[in-house]
Amino acid sequence: MMVDAPKINQGLEGIYFTESGICKVDGINGRLYYYGYSIETLAENSNFEEVCYLLLNGKLPKKSELSAFRKNLASERELPEEVIMMIKRASKKANAMDILRSAVSMLSFFDEDSGDNSEAANMRKSVRLISQIASVTAATGRAKAGKAYVEPDPKMNHVENFLYMLNGAKPEPDHVKILDTMFLLHAEHSSNASTFSGIVTASTLSDMHSAITSAIGTLKGPLHGGADEAALHMMNAIGKPENTVHYIVDALAGKKRIMGFGHRVYKTYDPRARIIKGRLEEMQNSADKEVRNLTNIALQAEKLMINKLGKSHGIWPNVDFFSGPVYTDLGIEDYLFTPIFAASRIPGWAAHIMEYLKGNRLIRPLEYYDGAIGKKYVPIKER
Amino acid sequence: MMVDAPKINQGLEGIYFTESGICKVDGINGRLYYYGYSIETLAENSNFEEVCYLLLNGKLPKKSELSAFRKNLASERELPEEVIMMIKRASKKANAMDILRSAVSMLSFFDEDSGDNSEAANMRKSVRLISQIASVTAATGRAKAGKAYVEPDPKMNHVENFLYMLNGAKPEPDHVKILDTMFLLHAEHSSNASTFSGIVTASTLSDMHSAITSAIGTLKGPLHGGADEAALHMMNAIGKPENTVHYIVDALAGKKRIMGFGHRVYKTYDPRARIIKGRLEEMQNSADKEVRNLTNIALQAEKLMINKLGKSHGIWPNVDFFSGPVYTDLGIEDYLFTPIFAASRIPGWAAHIMEYLKGNRLIRPLEYYDGAIGKKYVPIKER
Repeated sequence: MMVDAPKINQGLEGIYFTESGICKVDGINGRLYYYGYSIETLAENSNFEEVCYLLLNGKLPKKSELSAFRKNLASERELPEEVIMMIKRASKKANAMDILRSAVSMLSFFDEDSGDNSEAANMRKSVRLISQIASVTAATGRAKAGKAYVEPDPKMNHVENFLYMLNGAKPEPDHVKILDTMFLLHAEHSSNASTFSGIVTASTLSDMHSAITSAIGTLKGPLHGGADEAALHMMNAIGKPENTVHYIVDALAGKKRIMGFGHRVYKTYDPRARIIKGRLEEMQNSADKEVRNLTNIALQAEKLMINKLGKSHGIWPNVDFFSGPVYTDLGIEDYLFTPIFAASRIPGWAAHIMEYLKGNRLIRPLEYYDGAIGKKYVPIKER
Repeated sequence: MMVDAPKINQGLEGIYFTESGICKVDGINGRLYYYGYSIETLAENSNFEEVCYLLLNGKLPKKSELSAFRKNLASERELPEEVIMMIKRASKKANAMDILRSAVSMLSFFDEDSGDNSEAANMRKSVRLISQIASVTAATGRAKAGKAYVEPDPKMNHVENFLYMLNGAKPEPDHVKILDTMFLLHAEHSSNASTFSGIVTASTLSDMHSAITSAIGTLKGPLHGGADEAALHMMNAIGKPENTVHYIVDALAGKKRIMGFGHRVYKTYDPRARIIKGRLEEMQNSADKEVRNLTNIALQAEKLMINKLGKSHGIWPNVDFFSGPVYTDLGIEDYLFTPIFAASRIPGWAAHIMEYLKGNRLIRPLEYYDGAIGKKYVPIKER
């Protein structure tokens, strides 16, 4: 590198690219707030539909507002026949996130607001995509299981309908409650990589479908949304609770990879992971052997990682670490974990995109060029 | 804003996020280099296929290497039947960039390297996407014109085959030459917004199709790839060369928007625009009235903008400003301008994604939260 090289901010770590009023991630104290409400408060008192309203509108709804919003969400659940057919054909071998990315991209063809990038149209598209991404995820689950598509039921709430479209039967209320909390905990997390990629796309004044398509492709990676599936695969590789110590010792010696620990922003316990851990503690004695095994492996691994076998400081679990056992307990296949993350995060994505567009500035950072310049072009015969 | 607010880098202007050996944009002197070769040298001596090799491999090919690379490109032009059918069905009303974004996303279903994120697989996918994006663009042009899909001809070179698939007839050699230069000039431009969005997506260890899908969605916006189409619409709105002064006076007074001028990095004449301007000077006396009009409007507008009617410093045209008249002269419809930009930029996108992955670091900047924290949750009945 040359002497006058500028500062390179690898990964843009610590770089602020905008102001935002949506989300505070307090990485030092392990706190998370959506529009000022702590995640613990919301998990205890609110629900995913209300949190969607909060994220899109910046305030909690009055009763009539929530009722209209829920009706709106329920009316947008149907998918175009062509998208359902695409999912069916692709489901045999395609990755579920590739299917979701393609489906959302294609939904632009059928969106009556396609081509209208006004704030009002973006709000309508956001609500529509919250409903449609859940429907695509459920349809993908059905198709991958070789089962027929289930039409949405507008009388059910968002998560209830999702489980109904996925399983073809009215879900148990406690399953709805648990999954609703998972959706709520994943709804928003400031400028994570997927949200940021959506903002970058929107910053050229492209459109909502392009931006959300980018966010889905970005979420897919195992360093982001793909981590929950990867963490479950690790737990499956550990196999039995009694193998956990051996695996973690090897992993800490650098011989194996540990998914679901550490976070760019949290330097302590991820508050979402703490809430989900509460659920795992209830699952420890599950009658289902697979669930019991996974749960105990997860809880043991967490303890060992935090203590780091007594050496130096520990490594904290993030939200992705405990999700797999909870989804497994709800009968959800691992390939749907990341699509469900997308179905949960869409209100956060949409909220950030709309907020950024209010004071839009094209996102275009620089690379530091470290090569030669002015090379002589040698004719091909002389190379 | 609070007193201790950190520096906010709006649009990440001036922020370096990585080192790169691919491209030098010298914005002060108006120079552009691909792997050290000036754009003027490449436009004069090289061609798009060779530039693709250069960008993917970091060096100019020997004769046998170029020959193998061309054969490889030619062998990857066919599209899966399902993608062709999707394009046909969507073409009636969907935006051509929405179609391209969806097609590339769906191509992941059929890619034999899908799921393999090794460097070797990414190189194969890159070559494949160079060929396929051109085929999708041509197929979209055919479908939008209500004409049948034309199978690729592996005996032709890349741009020749593109024009053949678009028009259904062997193209004139001078048309191939001009469009080849346009492809070459658009092949790469460091960390512009679309390239950057592809890198952000890839940085979660997602995959090549996700990353290129993001880049396409980002390119769509009128502040980026969509600018050439927007500039042509402006020229059409001006209508006749004699209306140009009036339009520019109004625009400079802030009453109208001028597309295709100014650039985040160039503070002088965009060297690509200068090369394309040379072609416009040849088109000034075209026998085609529409082309003659557009060309003269463009050349007059450029002169007025640079002189800024004699006041202060001028505003320089960028590459997007002169592209429209050239594409129109080649008989290409305006809705294909941005897809053609994508078909030109794909080697640059792929090169940056592969380079970044060698020393990957998750891209995750921060937002400065300027809202309240710890709000009290008021029950819905009391709101």
